[in-house]
Amino acid sequence: MKEIKLFSPATVANVSCGFDVLGFCLDPIGDEMVIRKSKQLGVRIIKIVGQELPLETKKNVAGVAAEALLSEIDSEYGFEIEIYKHIKAGSGIGSSAASSAGAVFGINALLGFPFTAKELIRFAMKGEELASGAAHADNVSPALLGGFTLVRCGETPDIIQLPCPNNLHAVIIHPEIELKTADARSVLKKTIPLEKAITQWGNLAAFISALYTSDYELISRSLKDVIIEPNRSALIPYFDNIKEAAINAGALGSGISGSGPSIFALTNGEVTAEKTRDEMVKILQSAKIEHSSYVSKINMQGIQILEQR
Amino acid sequence: MKEIKLFSPATVANVSCGFDVLGFCLDPIGDEMVIRKSKQLGVRIIKIVGQELPLETKKNVAGVAAEALLSEIDSEYGFEIEIYKHIKAGSGIGSSAASSAGAVFGINALLGFPFTAKELIRFAMKGEELASGAAHADNVSPALLGGFTLVRCGETPDIIQLPCPNNLHAVIIHPEIELKTADARSVLKKTIPLEKAITQWGNLAAFISALYTSDYELISRSLKDVIIEPNRSALIPYFDNIKEAAINAGALGSGISGSGPSIFALTNGEVTAEKTRDEMVKILQSAKIEHSSYVSKINMQGIQILEQR
Repeated sequence: MKEIKLFSPATVANVSCGFDVLGFCLDPIGDEMVIRKSKQLGVRIIKIVGQELPLETKKNVAGVAAEALLSEIDSEYGFEIEIYKHIKAGSGIGSSAASSAGAVFGINALLGFPFTAKELIRFAMKGEELASGAAHADNVSPALLGGFTLVRCGETPDIIQLPCPNNLHAVIIHPEIELKTADARSVLKKTIPLEKAITQWGNLAAFISALYTSDYELISRSLKDVIIEPNRSALIPYFDNIKEAAINAGALGSGISGSGPSIFALTNGEVTAEKTRDEMVKILQSAKIEHSSYVSKINMQGIQILEQR
Repeated sequence: MKEIKLFSPATVANVSCGFDVLGFCLDPIGDEMVIRKSKQLGVRIIKIVGQELPLETKKNVAGVAAEALLSEIDSEYGFEIEIYKHIKAGSGIGSSAASSAGAVFGINALLGFPFTAKELIRFAMKGEELASGAAHADNVSPALLGGFTLVRCGETPDIIQLPCPNNLHAVIIHPEIELKTADARSVLKKTIPLEKAITQWGNLAAFISALYTSDYELISRSLKDVIIEPNRSALIPYFDNIKEAAINAGALGSGISGSGPSIFALTNGEVTAEKTRDEMVKILQSAKIEHSSYVSKINMQGIQILEQR
């Protein structure tokens, strides 16, 4: 194989009760990337379409992630990367993670899969470190593994793949406002009340159980964030109204995707997802805020190979 | 049925990463209770053997729990309760929960099971409220339902029954020192660092997943408490040594049972459990601290009917 073209999906991190540890993979939106072997060693980003991002390898998340992989293996080739961005940077659905994960997935494939998908996570995290200053794994893990993933904090991240009810669907609403991850992080409090933490971890534990038992009602009862959302949602105009519209439309729950401004909802089934999307979008239409929206199955595969030659 | 004799088991709450939400049920230790219908309405505790506890209904956890149940149903009978205590009060393995849960279970059985086991939890919690000032469900739930249970905090507690790997065993070591729940609670900090909370809920989420997948290694990696144990363990002499002995003997993990002073360990299999118990006990023997110890399967049934007539 000389060249690979792949689809690297958007992802939702945090997922209300699962701040910093939970994430899931989306289906209809993602970046396309072409990665090919080159005689020239090292990594070169030769083309970025759809977004203004640095071509310089060490300043590009895909470049940094790719170099991290190559630092652990002898390769007789170098690699050229073309990135066709469809996920907007700063939208809160894992734009940098898609590029980082796609780069390491593609190079790994071209090298004959020396690393497992789980092993690729630590390389992709280097891209996340460049993007946000923190080498978090909660977007790159679902991008690389598909489905729902849990990141247990440890010296090295411990990634657990979770099951997912068949009929679970996600709605994503992206209001086109600028919300920097740094600002979204600055509203976080460094200490939190123990009582709220107990509520949060009870909800997260229940949500995990509900994924295993396909208990949609328990998903609904537990998909709550009493710690981050109350502070962070103030940065997203009409958040409360949009969330309320989602719940009224029959969504199981709704919250901030990643660090925002995108808002996600989970539903039982596609019909409810479409209805939920319509009702959420209406709020932004009334407020005359530009936006995009998606209805998605949970993508159980993660990154997908489109072409190889 | 006029009279029922039952075994009401000891339970372990908190379980390291699951502070205030997780609990499981033990097998070899518990109270026996005899409950019989009487012509005289109301609840009378007529006998308590093995412990100095108040016979007055409103001052006894079993009495209070029983009255809570009877306040929601018309009964043409009253009930007499005899309690044969084998679980020491203040030992940290759910002594008050066993009495509260046993009382409501027995009366419910004598009335022809008008309530489900889950519905009984809220009555038993009234006993817990009398015992500790907080109507917590984390011991009464596994006593009534068996196995591992999760309490999601809400306006009414939302109890989730969890699966359990077949070969999971528990070791309980009870050093006979006095440790009041109030003292154990006073060392808790009202606020905690967000970063530690994230570690804790990642561990709890992983632990729940591990129960579903029978992943003993993940149980071991996630059975950690970075929030409560560091403060509370100082109240239990030789805690660190006992825990270390458990881990060295092959236990999956070890922590404080409930609010202590009992210490639990979980193991894969009975042989390791016995070895773990031996090594943990050696520390207390060297320190000349009186103690009792148990090796237990996870009791998947909960309260057991011994006789009825």
